[in-house]
Amino acid sequence: MALVPTMGALHQGHMKLMENAKKLADRVIATIFVNPKQFGPKEDLAAYPRRESEDFEMLNASGVHLLFAPSAEEMYPEGYATSVHVGGISTILDGAHRTGHFDGVATVVTKLMLQSLPDIALFGEKDYQQLVTIRRFVADLNIPVDVIGVPTVRERDGLAMSSRNTYLTEEERRAAPTLFAEITKAAREIAGGSEIVPTLQAAKEAILNSGFKSVDYVEARYADTLNSYENSNKPGRVLAAAHLGKARLIDNVPIQP
Amino acid sequence: MALVPTMGALHQGHMKLMENAKKLADRVIATIFVNPKQFGPKEDLAAYPRRESEDFEMLNASGVHLLFAPSAEEMYPEGYATSVHVGGISTILDGAHRTGHFDGVATVVTKLMLQSLPDIALFGEKDYQQLVTIRRFVADLNIPVDVIGVPTVRERDGLAMSSRNTYLTEEERRAAPTLFAEITKAAREIAGGSEIVPTLQAAKEAILNSGFKSVDYVEARYADTLNSYENSNKPGRVLAAAHLGKARLIDNVPIQP
Repeated sequence: MALVPTMGALHQGHMKLMENAKKLADRVIATIFVNPKQFGPKEDLAAYPRRESEDFEMLNASGVHLLFAPSAEEMYPEGYATSVHVGGISTILDGAHRTGHFDGVATVVTKLMLQSLPDIALFGEKDYQQLVTIRRFVADLNIPVDVIGVPTVRERDGLAMSSRNTYLTEEERRAAPTLFAEITKAAREIAGGSEIVPTLQAAKEAILNSGFKSVDYVEARYADTLNSYENSNKPGRVLAAAHLGKARLIDNVPIQP
Repeated sequence: MALVPTMGALHQGHMKLMENAKKLADRVIATIFVNPKQFGPKEDLAAYPRRESEDFEMLNASGVHLLFAPSAEEMYPEGYATSVHVGGISTILDGAHRTGHFDGVATVVTKLMLQSLPDIALFGEKDYQQLVTIRRFVADLNIPVDVIGVPTVRERDGLAMSSRNTYLTEEERRAAPTLFAEITKAAREIAGGSEIVPTLQAAKEAILNSGFKSVDYVEARYADTLNSYENSNKPGRVLAAAHLGKARLIDNVPIQP
């Protein structure tokens, strides 16, 4: 049995997860839960897109077998007091910009896994740090579930599919693919032996010049630990987060030496 | 299948857990692991009694089916980064005196449960706050295990059995039962309608007068939430912790209105 946790507002990236789940398991449970614990006090919990009826139609069409869409009260009833904390990897990159975010993710994913005890659970590589964090606590807590990462699905122009893309105006939407283009260029150059710091700096400047309001980070990290990447033959990842209009977009690509 | 986690240095209290486990399940797994994460930097991790060969004999005689006695490296390999935190109940009483103790307990018990996925897991009421904390995170994280509390086993003079009793000199051992005697008296008086604060204060003084070095707390709490008890018809608990020689002893008894 496969579990595919989502926050709804489903798009083709989620459908790719469902498709992979159906290939790997005889039964697929999708979940929709906009988890309040993974949003900071100044973040977009209230604004996060909710499109339940469209989600139901997409899930029906996808052939998943069960949808679990609990309320916040069902997940966190009165008296609820427990959190799962992942040190190190959950406090860098997005964790440094979104305090408590990965504790919220770790807590809800632990609950969803233990509620259903699937054989496998699938997550998109789009949220790469989330995927690494989930692999970490699943191993650490001995949760008996195999974690499967699924490559990011992109629009034709390269923009990673994301529920938050709906926050973009038309003009912002035209600038958005620069994020992917620049980290792809940087990853290719680093794989080719370019110096890391100036390469990432150039990517950052190009992203800002294209219309992004600010850049939270553009970093090169080892793919498994998310420690700082140094030119080597090990697999790496360039990860970035930047603000465009009302949206905070994240993306990442492999460094393939 | 039943799980009985212990830190070894087994005594009749542990054997009572094994006995109950065998009544309730067809197979019983005992674990022995002196969990470094639940000892503070100034606590007795290095001194904690270890008696493996005696433990093995007792477990053999008890008829449990499997012993799991992992090393610290097996439980927390390099790169290990995850902890389970229980807010509220884990930060009061013993949690206030032993910072991080219950996070260590919650983390290792989560691991032991998910490693073996038992139907039930048994814990002594001697560590009453631990039992309440375990019930809390097991419910919160949806760990599919029933938590069973087993009443404290006592020496003839009332002293709660504990691996830490071996720290006591002969003279201290003679003073030790005062802890149980005084909280029992206090619980009876509170159940009978006595004012709570002076009753607990009198117990504290009697414990100190009997030779205890210091008292960490003597408190009356509701049995389920560990919130402060007020005279009522709900079940309560008097809990105490006090230092006698090198030992820190804890005990608790029910308030039965």
